[in-house]
Amino acid sequence: MFEVRRLQINYKTLEEFQKFREFGLEELSMKEDLEANIVENDSESPFYGIYDNDLLVARMSLYKIDGKYDRYFQPTQDYYELWKLEVLPDYRKKDYGTALVNHAKSFGAPIKTNSRCRADQFWLNMGFTPVKYNPMRDRGENPYVWLPENVGLQD
Amino acid sequence: MFEVRRLQINYKTLEEFQKFREFGLEELSMKEDLEANIVENDSESPFYGIYDNDLLVARMSLYKIDGKYDRYFQPTQDYYELWKLEVLPDYRKKDYGTALVNHAKSFGAPIKTNSRCRADQFWLNMGFTPVKYNPMRDRGENPYVWLPENVGLQD
Repeated sequence: MFEVRRLQINYKTLEEFQKFREFGLEELSMKEDLEANIVENDSESPFYGIYDNDLLVARMSLYKIDGKYDRYFQPTQDYYELWKLEVLPDYRKKDYGTALVNHAKSFGAPIKTNSRCRADQFWLNMGFTPVKYNPMRDRGENPYVWLPENVGLQD
Repeated sequence: MFEVRRLQINYKTLEEFQKFREFGLEELSMKEDLEANIVENDSESPFYGIYDNDLLVARMSLYKIDGKYDRYFQPTQDYYELWKLEVLPDYRKKDYGTALVNHAKSFGAPIKTNSRCRADQFWLNMGFTPVKYNPMRDRGENPYVWLPENVGLQD
């Protein structure tokens, strides 16, 4: 059995993030904020994860976007951007990725992600659909979205 | 010897793109536009590439962003977003990636890219610098920028 947990911002979490392929300015910025006491130790982060025997083996970031910046959904509304979904190589094929995405869907708001490295089939299996590519808005991304009931796409 | 060429939009180019790892809605949209005669065969694309014996082995997309959408540079101005820089595995260590980035710099405008999969050292070597991460603007990306003379960063 496993559960999806909201990850807290602390040095232990940041150390665990080092094992993931996608690691960059977002994580470094969290570290700086912690060091400068701009965020408190153990405050809530936008990251959710799954532990296997006390080891963080899967994670995603789920970032709430205010409806006034919404360029995807109809009617325009608050939605989530999901990024950095990643399962450590030795822990794949256990549905950890699916569990994280289902957790994101459980909040009931629309979700937008960027399907990378030809993961399209995974997102289709998760009930996401590709949008019509708009170069100025999408800038090289492959946006896939999940629509709750009564939510459509812009244009 | 090799040269960087601007790639034309046609079925041959799209077929060549299939070999690259990053392939998605942008490429599919180019194909649909070609099929629907929305773009003409052999029009110029935002892609640049390098051929080795008639085989496309490296590519990048360079997309001009209007200064009114600029949230990175000071003074605000037109700049390029560089994405999908990729060299096919058998053709690495030949400076093809470097040649493409130098070509992008030769236009003289600032450049913004997203350093992925821990490619930070490559971008630093290319003279790019990381920005201060802004969650709302950068949304999980790792933005690295190249600044021509007399151009600075916002905030």
